[in-house]
This record gives sequence, structure tokens and C-alpha cells, in this order.
Amino acid sequence: MAERRLGVIMYGVTGRMGTNQHLARSILAIREQGGVRLANGDRVMPDPILVGRDAAKVEALAKQHGVKRWTTDLDKALADKNDELFFDAASTQLRAEVLGRAIDAGKHVYCEKPVADNLHKALAIAKKAKAAGIKHGVVQDKLFLPGLLKLKMLRDGGFFGRMLSVRFDFGYWVFEGDLQPAQRPSWNYRKADGGGLILDMMCHWRYVLDGLFGGVKAVSCLGRNFIPQRWDEAGKPYKADADDAFYATCELEGDMVAQITCSWATRPRRDDLLTLQVDGTHGSAVAGLQSCRIQSKVATPRPVWNPDVKQALDLYGGWQEVPETQPFDNGFKVEWEMFIRHVCEGAPFKWDLMEGAKGVQLAELALKSWQERRWIDVPKLAV
Amino acid sequence: MAERRLGVIMYGVTGRMGTNQHLARSILAIREQGGVRLANGDRVMPDPILVGRDAAKVEALAKQHGVKRWTTDLDKALADKNDELFFDAASTQLRAEVLGRAIDAGKHVYCEKPVADNLHKALAIAKKAKAAGIKHGVVQDKLFLPGLLKLKMLRDGGFFGRMLSVRFDFGYWVFEGDLQPAQRPSWNYRKADGGGLILDMMCHWRYVLDGLFGGVKAVSCLGRNFIPQRWDEAGKPYKADADDAFYATCELEGDMVAQITCSWATRPRRDDLLTLQVDGTHGSAVAGLQSCRIQSKVATPRPVWNPDVKQALDLYGGWQEVPETQPFDNGFKVEWEMFIRHVCEGAPFKWDLMEGAKGVQLAELALKSWQERRWIDVPKLAV
Amino acid sequence: MAERRLGVIMYGVTGRMGTNQHLARSILAIREQGGVRLANGDRVMPDPILVGRDAAKVEALAKQHGVKRWTTDLDKALADKNDELFFDAASTQLRAEVLGRAIDAGKHVYCEKPVADNLHKALAIAKKAKAAGIKHGVVQDKLFLPGLLKLKMLRDGGFFGRMLSVRFDFGYWVFEGDLQPAQRPSWNYRKADGGGLILDMMCHWRYVLDGLFGGVKAVSCLGRNFIPQRWDEAGKPYKADADDAFYATCELEGDMVAQITCSWATRPRRDDLLTLQVDGTHGSAVAGLQSCRIQSKVATPRPVWNPDVKQALDLYGGWQEVPETQPFDNGFKVEWEMFIRHVCEGAPFKWDLMEGAKGVQLAELALKSWQERRWIDVPKLAV
Amino acid sequence: MAERRLGVIMYGVTGRMGTNQHLARSILAIREQGGVRLANGDRVMPDPILVGRDAAKVEALAKQHGVKRWTTDLDKALADKNDELFFDAASTQLRAEVLGRAIDAGKHVYCEKPVADNLHKALAIAKKAKAAGIKHGVVQDKLFLPGLLKLKMLRDGGFFGRMLSVRFDFGYWVFEGDLQPAQRPSWNYRKADGGGLILDMMCHWRYVLDGLFGGVKAVSCLGRNFIPQRWDEAGKPYKADADDAFYATCELEGDMVAQITCSWATRPRRDDLLTLQVDGTHGSAVAGLQSCRIQSKVATPRPVWNPDVKQALDLYGGWQEVPETQPFDNGFKVEWEMFIRHVCEGAPFKWDLMEGAKGVQLAELALKSWQERRWIDVPKLAV
Repeated sequence: MAERRLGVIMYGVTGRMGTNQHLARSILAIREQGGVRLANGDRVMPDPILVGRDAAKVEALAKQHGVKRWTTDLDKALADKNDELFFDAASTQLRAEVLGRAIDAGKHVYCEKPVADNLHKALAIAKKAKAAGIKHGVVQDKLFLPGLLKLKMLRDGGFFGRMLSVRFDFGYWVFEGDLQPAQRPSWNYRKADGGGLILDMMCHWRYVLDGLFGGVKAVSCLGRNFIPQRWDEAGKPYKADADDAFYATCELEGDMVAQITCSWATRPRRDDLLTLQVDGTHGSAVAGLQSCRIQSKVATPRPVWNPDVKQALDLYGGWQEVPETQPFDNGFKVEWEMFIRHVCEGAPFKWDLMEGAKGVQLAELALKSWQERRWIDVPKLAV
Repeated sequence: MAERRLGVIMYGVTGRMGTNQHLARSILAIREQGGVRLANGDRVMPDPILVGRDAAKVEALAKQHGVKRWTTDLDKALADKNDELFFDAASTQLRAEVLGRAIDAGKHVYCEKPVADNLHKALAIAKKAKAAGIKHGVVQDKLFLPGLLKLKMLRDGGFFGRMLSVRFDFGYWVFEGDLQPAQRPSWNYRKADGGGLILDMMCHWRYVLDGLFGGVKAVSCLGRNFIPQRWDEAGKPYKADADDAFYATCELEGDMVAQITCSWATRPRRDDLLTLQVDGTHGSAVAGLQSCRIQSKVATPRPVWNPDVKQALDLYGGWQEVPETQPFDNGFKVEWEMFIRHVCEGAPFKWDLMEGAKGVQLAELALKSWQERRWIDVPKLAV
Repeated sequence: MAERRLGVIMYGVTGRMGTNQHLARSILAIREQGGVRLANGDRVMPDPILVGRDAAKVEALAKQHGVKRWTTDLDKALADKNDELFFDAASTQLRAEVLGRAIDAGKHVYCEKPVADNLHKALAIAKKAKAAGIKHGVVQDKLFLPGLLKLKMLRDGGFFGRMLSVRFDFGYWVFEGDLQPAQRPSWNYRKADGGGLILDMMCHWRYVLDGLFGGVKAVSCLGRNFIPQRWDEAGKPYKADADDAFYATCELEGDMVAQITCSWATRPRRDDLLTLQVDGTHGSAVAGLQSCRIQSKVATPRPVWNPDVKQALDLYGGWQEVPETQPFDNGFKVEWEMFIRHVCEGAPFKWDLMEGAKGVQLAELALKSWQERRWIDVPKLAV
Repeated sequence: MAERRLGVIMYGVTGRMGTNQHLARSILAIREQGGVRLANGDRVMPDPILVGRDAAKVEALAKQHGVKRWTTDLDKALADKNDELFFDAASTQLRAEVLGRAIDAGKHVYCEKPVADNLHKALAIAKKAKAAGIKHGVVQDKLFLPGLLKLKMLRDGGFFGRMLSVRFDFGYWVFEGDLQPAQRPSWNYRKADGGGLILDMMCHWRYVLDGLFGGVKAVSCLGRNFIPQRWDEAGKPYKADADDAFYATCELEGDMVAQITCSWATRPRRDDLLTLQVDGTHGSAVAGLQSCRIQSKVATPRPVWNPDVKQALDLYGGWQEVPETQPFDNGFKVEWEMFIRHVCEGAPFKWDLMEGAKGVQLAELALKSWQERRWIDVPKLAV
């Protein structure tokens, strides 16, 4: 039961997500727990080196978390044969190019989504990775949310009978930045900087739909740019020209329908910022990020439509919470552990760059549907 | 302050809706309150005669409610010059023809929606009514729901700022009829009998959209027939081939978006069987049939997206109930009173057969959009 | 990104307010956070020297807070060219004279309110500061209370519609000192020592009224000396001859009315020791020091006046709390940071000695109104 | 223990107040309880005759309440010697004239407030009543509100020690009539029809101040007309030019101060639509219409003013409800019973037409104070 080291080049983790989820709660948490255990009992201890463009920021981050190795020289880092795995959480627009350099340097690669800002680039990098014979993977964290894991358990247990439809409700009000400071970075709202809600979220919904419900066959989408002026991090007004809301419908394999509402200009009155309602012949479920409520066929109440009196039936009351029968680890960390096993012992890993490309494909087709005002079929992707 | 009589031929009111809403809670309630008061102080007392095909049913209904006049002979009823107003709540498929006979007999006409089962018929009857110079109207009861009246008050009071979007969530689980008796008549689920959710509900949503939010410019719709077998009133299985769910998106004037979910195969977890969520720059509202909750711009909380912990913010808590500052009368009765004033003193009345035809138009275009898998523009209607 | 030092002479900070708010929570907290960041990225680190008349007290204070420099020799402190900024929180009656000496020594000056105990002195010192070309500022801390910042957000967001009126309710029972020890220093209740509630609070209300509602055009005020005997810090009875309550009404620009109740002889039954109720055509708000509740036009209930039964409507229930969408730093510190930027990089700073003089002006006119029993117009001040 | 009849001419009781409080809950309730018992054990049974200008209304009212006698002919009613007492609740503007006719007819008179729309008329009618030697009285119902009776009990019991001040907070938002129907008649908001809040409420506050606290010595008042457009009973917009808010301060005998806020353009956040806070050296009380809460000197908490943290002290918590140790009868009825005893056995009755004139006097002087922008002394009135 030996311990082996895995050198991990972490690129672009000074942002909130990179720091919190990938560095602290994944790699460092794995180190703390004594590494990732392989099938043969060996343990793999990841050994990170932080790479970024702003020396002060990278140094500060390294010090704060007790990471010994850091640099601003990506080429030198890639040249070091002792570090086998390259991880990228930097900008979407540069991702494909950076991954290409890492693949050329013989590294295995793992990265955030979207894998590229268009399908062409996404497919090219997947092809390149395949040709190079390296291991590759993409972060698909929503699948590991406890609420969605509960949905999976319900589906696998036959709770839904035949699944008919799923409603995605995602969003909240992102403050414009004048009265209250905004909660999200300003580049999210500028087209030229890779902003826009469709590109951001459709990459997620592709793997959630494919993984939990049925392969996406066709998409119809209407986008909107509701709030044309916002105030940036410095308090200055700017033109917000990227889509900040969209309304999509998808046809899924198995004759299911998915209806999707995503908006940064809505005020949610529901269980969570993201809820998924699944209706099936035998039962329905409403999942949030963590919780999940169910109503089975035999527990379905008989509501009365009477416009003359207040709804007597408490429509929230007839739902039952799915109990937690197991602890849920951080989803980012769980996927890191799976990918490390994939790299170190060839364990199966589903979410490779080709799967990442599928997310970009759905986003691209949704934008096309919006433009052409019609349903767009989703063709199979092949390398 | 004289009292005058208005003879009202009520056709096809033996069904649940006709009996409860039109006969008992409208016409008889108006009689009990002493009639409808006109601007000059006179009172109009409606005097109903019930007409139906099933003598036993009609007689029983008349007796039960103390209505002295009833018959099965529609022609004879129409021939009586003392009854000026004809009301139809019988089948959708025969409506246009029946209305035509009443118009030929010189009656003013008032009827349930849909005014016909296709746009061609609907326009023809509207044209005929106009040519005849009689007064005509269509029931558009949803506009008078307290929840929607509150939305109107919010809009008129400037609460929303610029309105961005509205979400319609309508539906509940209509029992198949095997385990539990169904809540709706079986013809609703058979194409050949004029069933189908799109035709039923799009007629409502047209006047709600036009009246509360913005004229409908274009529609995209996907229908489904989720439950292909049901059990009828006699407990016999039948093929249910009409659409029982649909997912629509509409572009409205003023650049608003309406997203609509209607389903008889869903289990609602929300405030009411129908909820409308309106999001505007200055505030949002969620209305049910009766209640309405609001969250203004300045009361909008700052939610935190943290997949590692349960949602700490109670997303139901930041909403405030719109208080009731006036009594709300039964909406069917309110519209009856308006139409009676229209007939007797020429008071303005907006919802004529042409407005009714618009509802049929939207239903027809939604069905076309489903078939052609694309957005369909909604042309202006003209007689 | 260099760091520069700013020598700050802190005079008279051995009192509760000076120690807690100005030394500990402002200057020392700024030091702890790494100084004040300027627009060019440089950081300014304040370096305090404590000055006071009582050597024992000053030394103890310096030690307790780890401040290295202290003295009782104000002249010597003022003579040191390395300390550029003079701050005064000592007695009101000597303030103008002390500020004058600091200005003569070429210091920038910052001070507590009131800037003087009469308008003549206040204007003279403002004039002197202007002539000397130094930077000057006055503490106006109430503007930075979270409750008042929320009112400002509501106003800027257009929540109120046309603002009609504001009610100031300030006060609590200051124990006489016989049964329970008094909560405030005895000089507050002696005319000869600069005591009196009108002078104390009108200086605050002036900048709050001008800044949040509308410039003060006229004032009517009635003062009272309700509790003529109190017991001092040593437990000795003394004659309390200063006003300890007043009732004022102000006309503001924009046709608003402000009604003010201030009393040290009242027992509050309300949300906080200070509450401000603002009524506008579109909504009302009640702010405390920290919290703020709102009721919008469309959420206004319909109360029923029925003397025969207990109020059925919960008049507290129809109010909604304004959520906290950003952290609020200590207001004294925020203003210190603004003033340091004003001194070091010429950033704009609104509350100079002229603004301070306006507070003294309103207090003086309120006293005059009381004496002459009539409304007094508030003339514009000019240096 | 004989029963005697007292004929009561009730003029102008078709309005809400007249019908509910004077007819139903006073005169008819007295009849139901078997009359008013005199000191000698006899019972007086009031026998009303309803008089009004609109025959249909008066007849309907009489029928509805089972009152046998009614007429539209006031002169005839006054001529009937068997009816000794005349009561007026019709319009303020005609009151003095109508009372004059009743006095000329030898009737005792009792009436609603204000007794006239100006002091000159009010004094003239009081003089006339005195000269005629008849019994006269004015409704002063607020004194009989349970909340105010509890204040009186507290005062009489020495609870307050020396009373220092009283705060009147009266008002609520009267809907403009556009979005929600208004709660008050439109004439209240038109100068020409006798509208205005100062005239309406100052008549009440005069007897409340004189009766519970101390004689009014001087008044300072600022009125406002905040809402210049309203919609009337027919839904038509009209110019609302009467004062709809005022802010007054009064000096009372005993060196007390009364500060008054009255507004039809405020949204109350307090215990009741009217609250009176009394502060005294030994204790304070806050009374609503029905309830009353107290805080005594020894139960007064020591609040902490700390702008950095939310108010830790629940300022509502330290108050104790005054228990109800006796049933409170309807205040209008109580005063009717007192006046009937005054008429029938000469029992003392304080609130005669002279007291009514004092109310008009205070209203008139408040209006004068507003116009002249100064304090106005209140001279003693003498017939």
C-alpha cells in the first residue's frame, strides 16, 4: 500500500471558484485526507504547483494555503516532466489554446467548462487529446449536487414510472450595481468578453439532461438582454449587451420534454435558486441544490379549482422530503478523485473533452435556434 | 328609478360550470340582489329560460333553482320576441352554428369560450354578429380572478417598472380514472370531441396576455399527449389522443416574454393551481387565483449560491402579500353585469366575438407552431 | 504601490466616543487593515499621536491600545511638521479656538460636531480654514448608519414616489442619577457647560435633512427643561437647567415636512432609539439605526376604524424588512477614510467646516424660534 | 319605579356614523336594555323619530331597524310637543342653523361635532341655548374609548407622577381612489364642502387635551395638502384642496407639551390607528383605541446606543398591558345615557355647546397659526 505523488499544474485558480472549489475543497482536502485510494490499496497524493499571470496574486494565494510551489512561467511548468497533470480554470476564450500546449507537452488534462467558446475549437481539442493518447476530463459539477444525486436515486429506483417532463428553474436577480453592489463579475454581461447566460448554463444543462433524463434531440430557445446597463466593479456604468435570460424547450430521447427558464433578472419564489421538477406517471419530484421533495401517484391530492374561494389545499403540504441516507462529499472533490483514479489506474471516466464539446454544441445550437426562430436538431458528435 | 325585465335564454347550462357560475352565481345572484343598476338609476332584472336537449336534466335543474321557465325546444325559445338575450354554454363544436341561429332570430348573444373550434368559424360568426348590429360578448372570466385583478392594480400603480417577463404555471394531475375517479370530463381528452389543452387554455391566455401584459406578437409551442389511456365516466378505458400538456413561449409587445407551462400531467408544488410570476425592473409578483405576493426592487435579497450547504435564505420569506382593499365579487357575475349594461344602455364592453376569435386564433397558431416546429407570427385580425 | 505615512494628532479622545469610535474603530482599525488605499494603488497608513490635558489618562489610553506616541503638550505637537492632520474631539466650547491654532500651524483639520457653540464662531473658523487653503472636515456619522443608508437606497431607487413627510423620533429616558446611575455625562444638562439637547441634536439633523430629504427652509421649535434636578458622576445633586426635550417642525425644499421629537425624558416604544418614518406617495419606510422596514403603495392595507373592537389588523405585520445586500463598515471609519483620501489625493469631501456651521446655524435658529414663538426662515450661509 | 318616554328627533342619521353609533348602538341598544335608569329608579325609554331629506333612504333605514316613526318634514317634527329632544348628525355647515330652529321650538338639543364651521356661529348657538334655558350637549366620543379611559385611570391613580408630554399619532393612508376605492367620503377632501383634517380632528383633540391632560394654552400648527387629486365615489377625479395632514404643538396648563401628528397620507407602524404616548416622571403609557401599555420608572430599561450593532434591546418588550378590570360599553351610548339623565333628572353633564365651541375655537386658531406662522394663545371663552 504505497503512496505515490501526482504533480498537478493548477492554472488560473486565483478566481473565487478556482480557489474555493478546486484548490481548497478538492486538491488540498484530498491531501488532508491522505490522498486518493486506488483499487490496489495504493494512495495517490496530489502535489500542486500554482500558475498564474499576476505574481502578487499567485504568491499570496500560495502562501495563504501553504502551497510551496508557484510560478508565473507556464512554459517552464509544462516542461517539468515530474508534473503529469494539467488543470485549467482560467478564461474560456483561451482555454482550447492552453489545453493544446499542455497536450503537446504530454500532460493529461482536466479543465473547467465550457471547454471552448465555440464548437469548432471544442472538437479540435478533443480530437487532439484523443490523438495524443492522454487522459482528459471536464468538470461537470452539477451532477454531484446532493439534490441531483437524489433525483438519480429516484430514477434508478423506478419512483417516477415513465418520466414525462422536467422543468429547470434557474436564476435570481443580479443587482445592476447602482443601488446594491452586483454579485457577479461584469464580464458575464459583455458579449465581447465571453459573457452571456446561454453559453454559461447550456454547458451544464447538456450533461445534466444527458445524464439524468435522456439524450437531447432538439432545442428551441429564445434569449433576451433585459438589463442593458449595469455598473461594474469600480462603480462605473457599462453597456451590458450579452443575453441575461433565456427560455428553452428540449426534446429528449424517451419522448421526454425539458422546459428551461434561466434568468439573471428574476426574483425566485421557490425552494432554491435552481429547482428541477420531474413529472412521471408514478410520481413527481422537485429537487433543489441539496434537498429533494417527492409526491407519488398514490399520494397525489385532488385539487379543487374554485375561483370564488382561496385555495384550500396547501399545495406545498403534500410533498415529502427525501431523507439523507448517506453523507454527500463536495462534488468538485468527488470528480477530482474519479479523474485521478482515471489517470493513475485507468478507472473509467465518462466526462472527457468530447462530453465537454457536447455542452458547447448545445449552447451553440440554442443561440442558432434563437436567431433562426425554429427548432434545431442536435446531431451526434464524432471525433 | 324603474325596473325593467331582460329575458335571457340560457342554453346548455346543465354542466358544472354552466350551473354553478352562470346560472346560480351570476343570473340568480343578480336577481337576488335586485337586478343590475343602470347609470340612470333604473334596475334590470334578468328573467331566465333554461334550454337543453335532455328534458329530465333541464327540468331538474329548473326545479332545483326555482327557475319557472324551461324547454327543450330551442327554435321556439328563439322565436319568442320577449327574450332578447341568448347565452350559450353548450359544446364548443356546435357553438358557432347555435350562435348563428340566435343572431338570425335577432337576439343579442353572449357565450362561453372558445367561440368556435377553429378560426374560420370564429371570424365568420363575429362578422355575422357585426353585420346584424346586435350586441355580442364572450366570457373571459380569468381577468376577474382576484389574483389577476391584483396584478392589474400593481401594473397600473407602476409597481413593476418595465415589465420583462411573465411565467404561466397551470396544471395539476388529472387522474387517469383507474385508481381514482377523474376530475374532468372524458371528452377533454379526445381529439374527435373537441378535446385538447391547447385549444382550451390558449383562448384564456390570449385575453390575459393582451389585457394584462402586452399584445401577443408570436408564439412557439410544443404539445404532448402524455397519458394515452384513460378511464371514462363509466369506468371504461378509452384512447386519450388529445394533447394533455404544452410548453409555449410568446413574444409580446413591449419586448416582454411570456413562458407558459400547462399540463394535466403534473403535480403542482406552488401557491395555487395557476400561478403567474411577473418580473419587472422595479419589482416582481407571483399571483394565484386569489392571492398575490410581491417583492420590490429594494426588498430583493442577495442570495448566495453555495453548493456545499443548504440554502440559508428562505426564498419564500422575502415576499409580501398584497392586502385586500376591496371586496371581489364573483368574476362571472361581474362580467354578466357589464354585458347586461352593454345590452340595455350601450355601456362599453370590450370582450366581443372578435376578441373571442383572437383566443381561437392563438390556439390555432400554437398548434401550427407545434406541427411546423418554428415560431409563428400572430397577424392582426380584421372583420 | 507604495505605502506612505500620515501623522495624525488626535486631541481629546479619552472620552467614550473619542476612544471607541475615533481611535479604536477608525484609526487603529485602518492600521490593522493595511491603511487606506488611494486611487493610484498607494496605501496611506495613519500614525497617531494622542494629546490630552490629563497625562495619566492619556498615557493609560496609549498603552492600552499600543499607541507609541502621546503628549500633554499641544503646542509642541502642533509644531511637528511631520504630523499633517489635526483631529479634535475635545470640548465644544473650546473647539473653534483649538482648530484655529491647528490651522495657524498649517495642519489640515478634522473634528467632531458641533464645530462651535455659536454660529458666529463656526463661520469664523470656516472662513479661516478656507483662507489658509487647508483641508477641513467635520464628523457627520449619522449619515453612515445602515438604517439611513437604506433610506438613501430607497430614495435613490424611487421607492417613495414623491416624498411628503419625515418623522424623527429620538430619545430615551436618561436616568436622573438617584435610583439608577445616569447614562450620559452631567455637563449635557448644564447650560453653562454647553449642554442642551437642541444644540447637540440639531447639528445632526441638519445634515441628515439636507442630505436625505431636502434643504431646510424654516424651523419652528419648542424646547423644555423637564427634569430640573439630576445627580452627577459623583452622586451629587445638581441643577439641570439645559433643555432636555424639544419638539420641532421644519419646512424642507420640495414641499416636504419634517416633524421632530427629541427627548431625554421619554420611554420609547418603537423599533429603535432613533426612528425615521418617511411617507411618500408610492411607499413609506421606518428606519432605525440598523434596520429599515417598508410598505409600498400596493401593499398598503385598508385599516378599519372601529372604536368598539380591538384593532383586528396587525399594523406591524404589513411591513417588510429591507434585506442587507452589502456589508456596512463602521460609519466613523468610513468617513475617516474619505477624509484621508481628501487630504492625500484631493478626493471630493462634502462635509467641510461650512457644512458643520450649517448644523450650528439650525440649532441657533431653533433656539431663537423657541424664544420668539414663531417660525424662523433659514438663510443661506456664505463665507 | 315608573317608565317614562322620551321622544327623540334624530336628524341626519342615514350616514354610516349616525346609523351605526347613534341609532343602532345607542338609542336602539338603550331601548333593548330597557331604557336609562335614573337616580330615583325610574326608567327613561327613548322613542326615536327619524328625520332626513331623502324619503327613500329614511324609510329604508326605519324599516331596517324597526323604527316606526319617520318623516322628511323637519318643521312638523319640531312642532310636535311630545318629542322633547332634538339630535343632529347632519352636515357641519348647516348644524348651527338647524340647532337654532330646534331651540326656538323649545327642544333640548344634542349634536355631533363640530358644532359649527366657525367659532362665531358656535358661540352664537351656545349663547342662544343658554338664553333659552334648554339642556344642550355635544358628542365627545373619544373620551369614552377604552384606551383613553385607561389613561384617565392611570392619571387619577398617580401612575405618571408629574406628566411632562403627550404625543398624538393619528392617521392612515386614505386611498386616492384610483387603484383602490377610497375609505372616506370625498367631501372630506374639498374645502368648499367643509372638508379638511384640522377642523375635523382639532374638535376632538380639544376635549381630549382639556379632559385628560391640561387646558390648552397655545397652539402652533402647520397644515399640508399632500394629495391634490383624488377619485370620488363615482370613480371621477376631483381636485382635493383641503388639508389632509397637520403637525401641531400645544402648550398645556401644568407646563405639559402636546405634540400632534394627524395625517391621511401616512402608513402607520404602531399599535393602533390612534396612539397617545404620555411621558411622566414616574411612568409612561401608550394608549390605542382599546389597549394601553405602561412602563413605570422602576421598569425603565437602560438602552445602549451602539451604531455598530443591531438594537439588542426589544423596545416593545419592556411594556406591560393594562388589564381590563371592567367592561367598557359603547362610548356613544354611555354619553347618550349621561345626556338623557341630564335632560330627565338634571344630572351633571360637562360637554355642553360651550365645550363644543371650544373645539371649533382650537381648530380655528390652529388654522390661523398655520397662516401666520406663529404660536397663537388660546383665550378663555365666555358666553
